[in-house]
Amino acid sequence: MTGHPTFRPVSRRGLLTGGAVAAGGALVAATVGPAQFGGRDDRPTEVALPSAVGASVEPFHGPRQSGVATEPPAHASFVALTLRSGTDRAALGRLLRLLTDDAARLTQGQPALADTEAELGLLPARLTVTFGFGPGLYRAADVDDRRPASVTELPSFRIDRLQPAWSGGDLLLQICADDAVTVAHAQRVLIKDSRPFATIRWVQRGFRRSPGVEPGGHTQRNLFGQLDGTANPRPGSALDRAVWVPDGPAWLRDSTTVVVRRISMDMESWDLLGRADRELAVGRRLDSGAPLTGTAEHDEPDFAATGPDGLTVIPDFSHLTRAHVTDDRLKILRRPYNYDGVPTAEGHADSGLIFTSYQADIARQFLPIQRRLADRDLLNEWTTPIGSAVFAIPPGCQPDGWIGEQVLG
Amino acid sequence: MTGHPTFRPVSRRGLLTGGAVAAGGALVAATVGPAQFGGRDDRPTEVALPSAVGASVEPFHGPRQSGVATEPPAHASFVALTLRSGTDRAALGRLLRLLTDDAARLTQGQPALADTEAELGLLPARLTVTFGFGPGLYRAADVDDRRPASVTELPSFRIDRLQPAWSGGDLLLQICADDAVTVAHAQRVLIKDSRPFATIRWVQRGFRRSPGVEPGGHTQRNLFGQLDGTANPRPGSALDRAVWVPDGPAWLRDSTTVVVRRISMDMESWDLLGRADRELAVGRRLDSGAPLTGTAEHDEPDFAATGPDGLTVIPDFSHLTRAHVTDDRLKILRRPYNYDGVPTAEGHADSGLIFTSYQADIARQFLPIQRRLADRDLLNEWTTPIGSAVFAIPPGCQPDGWIGEQVLG
Repeated sequence: MTGHPTFRPVSRRGLLTGGAVAAGGALVAATVGPAQFGGRDDRPTEVALPSAVGASVEPFHGPRQSGVATEPPAHASFVALTLRSGTDRAALGRLLRLLTDDAARLTQGQPALADTEAELGLLPARLTVTFGFGPGLYRAADVDDRRPASVTELPSFRIDRLQPAWSGGDLLLQICADDAVTVAHAQRVLIKDSRPFATIRWVQRGFRRSPGVEPGGHTQRNLFGQLDGTANPRPGSALDRAVWVPDGPAWLRDSTTVVVRRISMDMESWDLLGRADRELAVGRRLDSGAPLTGTAEHDEPDFAATGPDGLTVIPDFSHLTRAHVTDDRLKILRRPYNYDGVPTAEGHADSGLIFTSYQADIARQFLPIQRRLADRDLLNEWTTPIGSAVFAIPPGCQPDGWIGEQVLG
Repeated sequence: MTGHPTFRPVSRRGLLTGGAVAAGGALVAATVGPAQFGGRDDRPTEVALPSAVGASVEPFHGPRQSGVATEPPAHASFVALTLRSGTDRAALGRLLRLLTDDAARLTQGQPALADTEAELGLLPARLTVTFGFGPGLYRAADVDDRRPASVTELPSFRIDRLQPAWSGGDLLLQICADDAVTVAHAQRVLIKDSRPFATIRWVQRGFRRSPGVEPGGHTQRNLFGQLDGTANPRPGSALDRAVWVPDGPAWLRDSTTVVVRRISMDMESWDLLGRADRELAVGRRLDSGAPLTGTAEHDEPDFAATGPDGLTVIPDFSHLTRAHVTDDRLKILRRPYNYDGVPTAEGHADSGLIFTSYQADIARQFLPIQRRLADRDLLNEWTTPIGSAVFAIPPGCQPDGWIGEQVLG
C-alpha cells in the first residue's frame, strides 16, 4: 500500500545543506532553477514532487468553503441532485451532517466512515468538496428567507438552447482534485450517502491541465485554444471583494454564489475560421492572450485605439469588449473546466466548457456581463449555452459544525 | 504563451554541486530523498517537476511502436474507426502517412501540419499515439496474408454481454498522455484527418492516477480498490518476450497485438460484499495486494497452502488462481484504464475498466487465460465484459517511413 508522504515546502538552501532529506521514505525535497520564478533569493519555492501531488491537502474547515478561491485542480465533477419529496429541513440537516463528515475526511486523505473502497481514500491530491444550495433546497427546507436574493432561476437569454438534462438542481456537489481516481471515489462516496435523500439530476465531468504540466497560476487554454480566465480578479483582496459576501446574517456572511453553465463549443465551424478572424472575435491574440492593442496577457486593453482603416483595433462586439469590467466588485471569478464527450459517427466533436462563475451577487455581477454577451458577442457564433444552474455556496464550518448549519440549523 | 522547458534527468550529486541549475528559465533540477527508491547511491533519479511534466516526451520513431511498453500515462483515449467503403490499400496508405505525420509531430510537442489549435500542440506530456489494425483493415486492403493469425474475432465467452457500441473496429488510435487536454487535442487532430477515410465506431476515455500522485512503476488500483496489474511481466527481457514478435517477415517482426475489452464493474453488489469475501474472490489482500499466502505484493502465491479448515488459503476459483501464469512467454501485459460514466438517476455507478492486454500471440497467451477466467473466476460475479475488440499493433517506423508501411507498402 502506498504510504502517506507529507507534503512540505522546502527551501533551496535547506536542500543544499541536506536539511530537507526526509526520513520515512517520503518524497519531500525539491528545488527549482531560480530563474523560473524570476527570483534571486532563497525564498522557499513550493513545488509538488511525485507522490507529494497525491498527498497534497487543501483545508476543509474554515469560515469559507474551499474550492472557490482554491487554485483549480486538474479534474472536477459537478453533481446536481434533486431532493426526493419528503426531504425536509430535518432530513437535509441529517444529509449535510453526513456529507460534511465524508468531505472533511476525504479531503484530508482519510477514508469516509462507511468507505467500502478505503484504499482509494488515501491520496487526496488537493481534493475539495464544495456544497451549493439551489433555490429548490430553500423551498424544501422552508427557509426561503435565508436564500440569497440573487440565487434564483436566471432570465432566459436569446442565445440559450438549454437542455433540462444539464440544468437546475437542488444541491450541488462540486468535487475537484488533481487526480481523476480521487474524484471518482469521492463522487461515489458522496452519491451513496445522498441516495436516501436525493436522486441524480446531472453529472458533469471536466478537466484542465494535469498537475505539473504548466506552472501554477497560469491562465489555461480551452479547447478552442484560447486562454480562458485572463480577466479574473487577482487572488487576494480583489478576489475577496468580488467573491465573498463580507457581512450580513450568519447564513450570508462568507457565502458566495455560483452559476454553472454548460457551453457547447462548435469545433467544426471554429476550425474553418482563419486565425485573424478568431482573434478579432475574442479581441485577444491566440498565442499570448494579449489584447489586440497590447503585447502581454494582462495588458489593459485600449478600446479607443483605431487602426489604419479607422476602425477600432479591438472590435466593439469582441468577447473582450463585451465582457470587460474594471471595478473589482463587479468582476466575476471564472474557474472553467473543459469537457470532451464522444464525437459523432462522422467525427464531429462534442466539446465545450463547464463555465463556472463565482460572485457575491449574481444580479449585480454576473447578469450585467451575461446580458451584454447575450446581446452581442462575436463569439456567440461558435458557442451555445446548453445547460444552466445557480446555487448559493453557504459559509464554511468548523470541525464541530456542518456545511449548511447557518441555513438549516 | 508557455515556453518549452526541456526535461532533463539530473543527479542529486549534480544538483548539490550546482551543476543542475539551468539557464533559460526551465524547471530542470530535482532531487528526491534516496530512501524512496531504496537506494543509498547517487544514481540519477528521474522525476518530473512542474512544467517538466508537460514537456516530457516519449519517442515516436523506432522499430516498435510506443504506447505499449511505455509506462502508462494518466489519460487514454481509445478510438476505433470503421473504414468507409472504398478505403482500399492505396487510400489506407495515404491515411496512415497523414496520421503518422500528425503523431510524429504531436508526440514531440509540435503542432500538426494543419493544426487549427496549434497552441494546444505544445505540451506533449508523454503523449503516445499507437496504431492498431483490426481484421477488417486487412480485408479492405486485400492483404489478409499479412494479418497475424491470432488477430481475429475472439470466440464468445459465456460471461460476455458484448454491446456492438463498444466492440470491433478496423483501425485503432490509442492516444495516451499525462494530460487530458493534450489527449483531447490529439484525438481531435487525428479524427479530423481520418474523416475522409473512416467513421467513428467507438471512443473510450480512461484514466489512471495523475502524474506525481504515486511514484512511477507502482501497480495502480481500479475502482473496486484492487491493485490491478501485479502479475505483469517485468519491464525488460520478460516483457519483451511476452509482448513483441521476435522474428518473421517485416510486417510481423517487432509487432504485437492488443485485446481491448470494456469490463463493467458492478459497484452496487461489490460494495455489499465484506472485506474478507472480496479478498477471497481476488486471492489477494486489498491493502497490500499480497497473495493471501504472502505478505508483499510480488510474493509468489502458494496455491497448495491450506488453512486450519483444510481448505486452500487461496480459493481454487479465485481470480489470482485462475489467471496465474508462470512462463513469461505465456504472460500478457495489462495496461488498464478506469472509466467512470454518468451514474443513473438512482445513483448507481457506471464504472469499470478499459482492459487492455498486449501479447505476441492472442491465441497462445490471452485466450488460455481468458478461457480459465470465463469458465470459473469468483470475480465474474461482479464484472461483465460489455465490449471487445482485437487489433494487430504493426511495427514502428523510422523518420522517413510511416506506420503500416510493412503491411500496406
